[in-house]
Amino acid sequence: MKTVVPAYLNDVKDKIIMIDQTLLPNEEVYLELEKMEDIWEAIKMLRVRGAPAIGVAAGFAAYLSVKHSKASSVTELRAGFEKDRDYLATSRPTAVNLFWALDRMTKRFDAQMDKSIDEIVAALLEESEEILSEDQRMGQAIGEHGLSLLKPEMGLLTHCNAGGLATSGVGTALAPMYCGDDKGYNFKIYADETRPLLQGSRLTAYELDKAGLDVTVICDNMVSIVMKKGMIDAVLVGCDRVAANGDAANKIGTSGVAILAKEYGIPMYVLGPTSTIDMDTATGDDIEIELRDTDEIGNGYGRRTAPIGVKAYNPAFDVTDAKYITAIITEKGVVYPPYKENIAKLFE
Amino acid sequence: MKTVVPAYLNDVKDKIIMIDQTLLPNEEVYLELEKMEDIWEAIKMLRVRGAPAIGVAAGFAAYLSVKHSKASSVTELRAGFEKDRDYLATSRPTAVNLFWALDRMTKRFDAQMDKSIDEIVAALLEESEEILSEDQRMGQAIGEHGLSLLKPEMGLLTHCNAGGLATSGVGTALAPMYCGDDKGYNFKIYADETRPLLQGSRLTAYELDKAGLDVTVICDNMVSIVMKKGMIDAVLVGCDRVAANGDAANKIGTSGVAILAKEYGIPMYVLGPTSTIDMDTATGDDIEIELRDTDEIGNGYGRRTAPIGVKAYNPAFDVTDAKYITAIITEKGVVYPPYKENIAKLFE
Repeated sequence: MKTVVPAYLNDVKDKIIMIDQTLLPNEEVYLELEKMEDIWEAIKMLRVRGAPAIGVAAGFAAYLSVKHSKASSVTELRAGFEKDRDYLATSRPTAVNLFWALDRMTKRFDAQMDKSIDEIVAALLEESEEILSEDQRMGQAIGEHGLSLLKPEMGLLTHCNAGGLATSGVGTALAPMYCGDDKGYNFKIYADETRPLLQGSRLTAYELDKAGLDVTVICDNMVSIVMKKGMIDAVLVGCDRVAANGDAANKIGTSGVAILAKEYGIPMYVLGPTSTIDMDTATGDDIEIELRDTDEIGNGYGRRTAPIGVKAYNPAFDVTDAKYITAIITEKGVVYPPYKENIAKLFE
Repeated sequence: MKTVVPAYLNDVKDKIIMIDQTLLPNEEVYLELEKMEDIWEAIKMLRVRGAPAIGVAAGFAAYLSVKHSKASSVTELRAGFEKDRDYLATSRPTAVNLFWALDRMTKRFDAQMDKSIDEIVAALLEESEEILSEDQRMGQAIGEHGLSLLKPEMGLLTHCNAGGLATSGVGTALAPMYCGDDKGYNFKIYADETRPLLQGSRLTAYELDKAGLDVTVICDNMVSIVMKKGMIDAVLVGCDRVAANGDAANKIGTSGVAILAKEYGIPMYVLGPTSTIDMDTATGDDIEIELRDTDEIGNGYGRRTAPIGVKAYNPAFDVTDAKYITAIITEKGVVYPPYKENIAKLFE
C-alpha cells in the first residue's frame, strides 16, 4: 500500500504526535502532546478532527488524567478521572466517538477498582492503545467491505475528510479508495472542498495526492453538474453519528449530496466504525447540531468575504435521512435497509 | 424605495461609471470607463457581471467603437464596428445578453446606413441609453410580477447575485425582495455564498444589507439544512441563458439548489428579462459551459486552499432542467409550464 497520512504519527505511550490539520495543506507541522489540556485544545480547535481520530485522542487524554494524577488513593484517582472526563466531553459535544472512548476508558477503570494506582494507570494506557490499534484494523476492514461494492475506473465523490487524517489508519470513506488503489483500480476521485473549513480541499486532496491517487477538487455547489455529466459512479462519505434508524449526521452538506445522488440514481454509501452508531439515539431528529462561529463563513479563509455585520448561519453538521442512504459500511460488513432491524443485528 | 446599489452610477453619455465588483465588500471603488478596451477588460475580469449589466456594458462599448472611430466613410465606420463587435463578443462567451446587446446595436447601425457618421454615432448612443433605461424598467416589472407570488414574512433563498449589481436597476431575482420591502413584507433572506467567487456573500449580502433588508449568508452546502428546517418558502434565482424549452443556465450550483427545492416541496423561480431567453437554443444541452481558471478554487480567496498541483474542475455555470423550475418570471409576466409553448408566446 502507498503511504497514507494518518492523524497520528505514533502508537501512543507518553505522548501523542499529531499533524496540525488546521495548517494543512500549506504547512506540515507535527504537535507532540503530553498534557490532557493540550489534547482538549487540539480537539476544540480542530487540529485533530474526524470521529475515529477524536475517539483515539479522547482515550489517550483520559489515560493522561490518571498518569499525571497526584492522587494517593484509588478513590481520589477516580474522582479526578471523572472530573477530567466531564471536562474532555466539552471539547466537541457532537462527536459520539468522544463519548464512546471516554465511556470505554471509564469501564476499564471500573474493572480495576481493586487494583493499585500503578496497575490502573497501566490498564488505561493499554486500553487507550487498544482503541488506537482497533481503529487501524477497523479502517482496513471498512476498506475491504467498501471495495466489494466498487469497480475499477469508477468516478467516486467524497465530502469533507473521512480519510487517514480522520483516523489513525487508512480512514473510513477513503479506505476503499486506498484498498482499491492497491489493486490497481484506478479510481477518479472528486473531493468537495467542504466550506467553510475546506476539509475536502485542504485535507482530502492533500492526503489522496500524497498517496498518489487521482483526485480533483470541486466546490460544494458543483456536485450536481459532475453527477449530471456522468462523472460520478458512487458517493462515499464518513459519519459523525448514526442513529438507530440509519439517519446519519455528518459534515454540513452531506444531506444535500445524498439527495442529489438519489435524483441522479447514484449509490450513496456512509462508512464508519460501529462505534459511530449510537443506539441510544432513535432518529436523526434527536441529534443536536453544533453551531459554530459565523466568522468561519464571513472571514472566508484568511480574508473578509462578507460585509462586516452581516449575519451568517453556520451549522457544522447536517443529518442525512436513512431513505437517501444506499448502504452503511462498518468494520463488520455492509448494512442495507431496513436499517432499524439490520443495524440492531450488528450489536446482537 | 430604499437605496439599491446598481452596477452603474450614471446614465451613459461619454463614459460609464461602474462599481468594481471584484473589490466588494472590502472596497467601494468606482471606475470611470470611456474606452472600449477598458469595458472589455471589465467584463472579462468580472468587474461588471450579471447578464443584464453585461448587456448594458456591451451596448455602450459598441457605441464607443463608432464614437472614437477615425473612419472617413460610413463603409469604413461599419468595417471597424464589425471588428470591434467580434472583439467585444470574446469578453464573456456564455453571456447571451452580450450577444443580444451587440446584435441590437448592429441592427440600429443597419437602419442608419444612409445617414452621416455623426447621425450614426448619435443613433448608437441613443440605442445604448435605451438598453440601459429598458433594463431599469425591466427590473421594476420583474419585481412586481415576482412579488405577486410571495407573501409577507417569507423566508427566501437566492444563489449568486441577480440584484441591483447584476443590472442597472433593482436586479432580477432580488427585484421582488426590494419591491416587497417597500410594502413592509419583512422577508428573511438567505444568500448562498456561491463559491468560488463568492458573489453571494460579497455582492448579494452587500447590496441587501446596504438597502436595509434582512439577509443571512450561508455556505452553498447549507441549502439542504435550511430547507429541511423550514426556513425557506421560495427560491429566487437569476439566469444567464434560458433555452426555448425552459432549461436555464445560471451560476454554478443553481441546478443543485433546484433539485433540493423540488425534494423539499419549495417553489423554484427563475427571474430574468426576455433578452435572456435564447429561442435559437432548443434545450440546455446546447448551452456550452464556460470553464474557468482552477486557481479560483485552489487559491481560495487570497490564500492557498488546496495543495499545489492538485487538479480542480471549475465550471462557471450549470443548467437547471426545466422540470425543476416552478415558474420563469420576465418583465412580461409569470410563465408556467409547459415552457416550450408558453415561452414561445412571449415572442409572438
